[in-house]
Amino acid sequence: MQFLSDNAASVHPKVWEAMHAADAVDAPYDGDAFSKALDERFSDLFGRECAALWAATGTAANCLALATMCEPQGGVVCHREAHIEVDEAGAPGFYLHGAKLLLAEGEGAILTPDGVRAVIDPIREGVHQVQPHAISITQASEYGRNYRPEEVAAISSLAEERGLGLHIDGARFANAVAFLGCSAAEAVGSAQALSFGFIKNGAMSAEAVVLFDLSAADLVRYRRKRAGHLQSKGRFLAAQIIAMLEGDLWLNNARAANAAAAEIGHACVDRLMHPVEANEVFMRCTASEREALRKQGFSFYDWGDDAARFVAAWNAREEDAVALGKAIVSL
Amino acid sequence: MQFLSDNAASVHPKVWEAMHAADAVDAPYDGDAFSKALDERFSDLFGRECAALWAATGTAANCLALATMCEPQGGVVCHREAHIEVDEAGAPGFYLHGAKLLLAEGEGAILTPDGVRAVIDPIREGVHQVQPHAISITQASEYGRNYRPEEVAAISSLAEERGLGLHIDGARFANAVAFLGCSAAEAVGSAQALSFGFIKNGAMSAEAVVLFDLSAADLVRYRRKRAGHLQSKGRFLAAQIIAMLEGDLWLNNARAANAAAAEIGHACVDRLMHPVEANEVFMRCTASEREALRKQGFSFYDWGDDAARFVAAWNAREEDAVALGKAIVSL
Amino acid sequence: MQFLSDNAASVHPKVWEAMHAADAVDAPYDGDAFSKALDERFSDLFGRECAALWAATGTAANCLALATMCEPQGGVVCHREAHIEVDEAGAPGFYLHGAKLLLAEGEGAILTPDGVRAVIDPIREGVHQVQPHAISITQASEYGRNYRPEEVAAISSLAEERGLGLHIDGARFANAVAFLGCSAAEAVGSAQALSFGFIKNGAMSAEAVVLFDLSAADLVRYRRKRAGHLQSKGRFLAAQIIAMLEGDLWLNNARAANAAAAEIGHACVDRLMHPVEANEVFMRCTASEREALRKQGFSFYDWGDDAARFVAAWNAREEDAVALGKAIVSL
Amino acid sequence: MQFLSDNAASVHPKVWEAMHAADAVDAPYDGDAFSKALDERFSDLFGRECAALWAATGTAANCLALATMCEPQGGVVCHREAHIEVDEAGAPGFYLHGAKLLLAEGEGAILTPDGVRAVIDPIREGVHQVQPHAISITQASEYGRNYRPEEVAAISSLAEERGLGLHIDGARFANAVAFLGCSAAEAVGSAQALSFGFIKNGAMSAEAVVLFDLSAADLVRYRRKRAGHLQSKGRFLAAQIIAMLEGDLWLNNARAANAAAAEIGHACVDRLMHPVEANEVFMRCTASEREALRKQGFSFYDWGDDAARFVAAWNAREEDAVALGKAIVSL
Repeated sequence: MQFLSDNAASVHPKVWEAMHAADAVDAPYDGDAFSKALDERFSDLFGRECAALWAATGTAANCLALATMCEPQGGVVCHREAHIEVDEAGAPGFYLHGAKLLLAEGEGAILTPDGVRAVIDPIREGVHQVQPHAISITQASEYGRNYRPEEVAAISSLAEERGLGLHIDGARFANAVAFLGCSAAEAVGSAQALSFGFIKNGAMSAEAVVLFDLSAADLVRYRRKRAGHLQSKGRFLAAQIIAMLEGDLWLNNARAANAAAAEIGHACVDRLMHPVEANEVFMRCTASEREALRKQGFSFYDWGDDAARFVAAWNAREEDAVALGKAIVSL
Repeated sequence: MQFLSDNAASVHPKVWEAMHAADAVDAPYDGDAFSKALDERFSDLFGRECAALWAATGTAANCLALATMCEPQGGVVCHREAHIEVDEAGAPGFYLHGAKLLLAEGEGAILTPDGVRAVIDPIREGVHQVQPHAISITQASEYGRNYRPEEVAAISSLAEERGLGLHIDGARFANAVAFLGCSAAEAVGSAQALSFGFIKNGAMSAEAVVLFDLSAADLVRYRRKRAGHLQSKGRFLAAQIIAMLEGDLWLNNARAANAAAAEIGHACVDRLMHPVEANEVFMRCTASEREALRKQGFSFYDWGDDAARFVAAWNAREEDAVALGKAIVSL
Repeated sequence: MQFLSDNAASVHPKVWEAMHAADAVDAPYDGDAFSKALDERFSDLFGRECAALWAATGTAANCLALATMCEPQGGVVCHREAHIEVDEAGAPGFYLHGAKLLLAEGEGAILTPDGVRAVIDPIREGVHQVQPHAISITQASEYGRNYRPEEVAAISSLAEERGLGLHIDGARFANAVAFLGCSAAEAVGSAQALSFGFIKNGAMSAEAVVLFDLSAADLVRYRRKRAGHLQSKGRFLAAQIIAMLEGDLWLNNARAANAAAAEIGHACVDRLMHPVEANEVFMRCTASEREALRKQGFSFYDWGDDAARFVAAWNAREEDAVALGKAIVSL
Repeated sequence: MQFLSDNAASVHPKVWEAMHAADAVDAPYDGDAFSKALDERFSDLFGRECAALWAATGTAANCLALATMCEPQGGVVCHREAHIEVDEAGAPGFYLHGAKLLLAEGEGAILTPDGVRAVIDPIREGVHQVQPHAISITQASEYGRNYRPEEVAAISSLAEERGLGLHIDGARFANAVAFLGCSAAEAVGSAQALSFGFIKNGAMSAEAVVLFDLSAADLVRYRRKRAGHLQSKGRFLAAQIIAMLEGDLWLNNARAANAAAAEIGHACVDRLMHPVEANEVFMRCTASEREALRKQGFSFYDWGDDAARFVAAWNAREEDAVALGKAIVSL
């Protein structure tokens, strides 16, 4: 029973179906009808005009988006445990040509205006120190926490006040929206760009860079090609995304994953390191407890010495989550 | 009848099959059994130990390979019409951190030792001019020409003599091997790295970076991740490649494409701009002749004002090629 | 008798004097009164508001200026023999983060609108090819030729029409202005940025980046620091520049150098490879003729196998130029 | 009475003298006799063969040195308050093409093996996280503290054990050696590279990159040119350095500066934030105390709200230091 990661999960049947439907030759690169439809699909979803492009990984999506708001000599404020800082192998330094990540603190890997100010206020004006150009937040966060619409708005206000761009790493954006019960638009507030994740949620190899600042779209197009991310059979990526948006598959998959995580979370509420607000559960437990769970067939990551991380993928089976919950209760 | 490009062609049924077979969860990134098998598969094919990694585009494959042999302050000698110079949006400048392409001449986009020497000999030693670090050739070339094994060897010798790396852009490597009738090993000579293309030849989204210098593999691994090219469901890319290698599908597909191109080439032998040695045909013809062909249902690219380019994909139908040949003869 | 280069010439006494006067402590970096005066000094000289910053080399000045008008994914059109292409070790690739130089042809290393169009018109729109962002010309050119004001204007018009920036590499700008007999303003036309050279003309280690687009000044300030070019005792650079501007020392030095070159040029008018319009003379002559001149004590560079290059520095002695002229006539 | 900084201090008369002596034309760039002598001079000083090149700023020297030991995908461990992290405007990100600084803690901006291990041990092996390639320490530190030879040795051992390079930012290396009373060689231990500062210590515009790994020299030469730091009249930089080495001027100047700082330090021993081991004094004091000192004619930096920083330059006058000491005592 797999609770290791949502990263390697299977591909949803409807995604497979859409990919097959896209097999017949159309135009190369992003000249096909599927790719061309993305702007409209996401504009409909967010209720305002936006531009949307596919990219094969969250790292590429994040970096392409950030490059529209941070120049090489600038910095991006993000959480000390943000994925772009910790798990992207320095990709922001590559895509942003040496720009710096400026690390802020915050409970549950969630940034607050105070946390951001604590980083940017001490920066001396002038050329000797790297000046902030943008803020990046992760929705849902690296610890499965979500920004409420008013929290996004507060960060947005600060960003605007200081002339900074705002980017959202939404590798698990669907899980956040599913949990918050708000609209996709409310979950992004007035961010300029969103990396909208689909791969962890049932797609195979397509994330979307959603740009609410339309003037940034050309830059992303050029930079995507320059980064070797303009696939010649791009229709297969676009088709995945369209399938995920169709009939709210993205939301339904995320709800299923969240439900499984919630099931597990309820079983260990007194052991939780973070409230369960998406599809991840971080639970305090000893090495021998983890061993006991593994013996019962559950797979998951150790989280340091005294904890475990369970991730429910879109196709997590309810009975597995129930079983895991029971196993935890019996520890 | 499609002779526009091999770039957007359909995916081969066996590739689809292999991808479906890879759907069941295995490890994320390149920890899966398919990805792990690549080194061995390519070592078998080339008859010597090599390391092989998937990448989603030829541009990424080329640039990741080149970055193992050219430092940021160096230069890569390539043909003035090489894909890396003309059609990759400056990706080598991005991946190689500002390194320069040093442009050589040569009939049919084929480099010769003399052509390379004409570029590198005038470079003054010392720090004022960009020094060459590597040579990149395209097999088959941008005009559908192939380097004979002895021609690759001659370039190799020059590279070794001057301490330069040698990279082969093999976006259509299969077509070259199919035409040359030699082994894959003979077609690469002693190059350090090959970008082995599968996408134009029946795959969906996977090329291979093949490294004959094993010490370069780690660098490519780190740089691939850093470029956002380490896909979390990498097994789907590896599976495509393995399917293409299985039963020589890569060779069979290329043979079919070459045969279709040869059919067309025979029909217009006196109009040819370049000998037909792969799956591309460059033919002199007037605008009205092109119009006449298009009226008969053939699609293809104009090549400047006085020529046309026909590309036969792996699934080009023989009858279409025959029909095109007849139409050309009747012009 | 030295006609090798103006590059290593002595420092003018008035520059020394100004440097000594700047010794007393003032503010560090560019906070001193000398550095702060530059904007006004150059605004006076050019008759319009501009921003001016010192830099220690022409390479740094050129690259800092170009970085204000060409993004990493773009290209800068320049002459195939431009200093930025041939003699700056790939610095534009470094400072512009991988942007490309797009090489144009032109007699005497002088670009024309037609020469520029021949480079940019064939570039396909779209993301596959590097799009031009700027044009860079050299005034005086690498062969000692000058753009007449109307020629600068023609290039400027083309640049504006195509939305491109215009940069002037003015390593020998003083020599150009001295020859043209026009104002400094006329010699730059509506370029956005000028690298104004002083080092070859009597200074020790200071060039100026002159920005006619004031909005670019901050970017140059940040990038200069980031490139390690913000010297802590910057007053010594600013003082050099102010001394050079004082009483038209820059023009007088350039006139002296030009006069010496003209003297030599007159002596070999039938051997000239390029008209002598600045302080350089390119003369056809055989190896044995060059040997004969060297035996008489003249030092200069061989220019390929069949020519010599003589450069008159600001302190070239008239009698040496006369002597060289006579020696040439007697060959 | 100036205790603001050593950064903008006057130039030592012997340095002026040496610069004048270098005025007569020699070779351009670093082909002159002064530049060529540097290797030998520093080899003599350090008692082992080394290569030495001039650079106009400490930032350039640091970054050129670091680029020899950290690839673009790697990281450099340094103190959270290291100059390269805090005051170089992101220059390491530029010169190292996006490499990352990995921030360690340590009293007085001094790194310890434990502090370094606390940063590098948690880094997971593999491609997802930036791997350390080098360590950089500052001797004397940003708080005027010095590494004892055995402390440098301990860091060196760790570096060797982990396969990391070791760089020393020696902007105030002279002050460290003067304080430690050891040889220059003992103060660098087995570091591969040292940025040896002269500008704060009496020179005008020349620092030295000293490479104990001779194989790195060519890379620094190419990168220096590519960064626009190869000055055409480089002899003026080399001459400054040679003058500073001559007769131990570097040591004598540093001793004088240290003595002045020690004088001040003695006067406020109970207010000191850090032991005074070089030419900087960090002293706790209130805003009104600072105001009182300023009224008596002392200039210095506020260090946050509750402290002041005094820096004694090479030409700090003993009587000024004594006067400041008395003024502090009387607060």
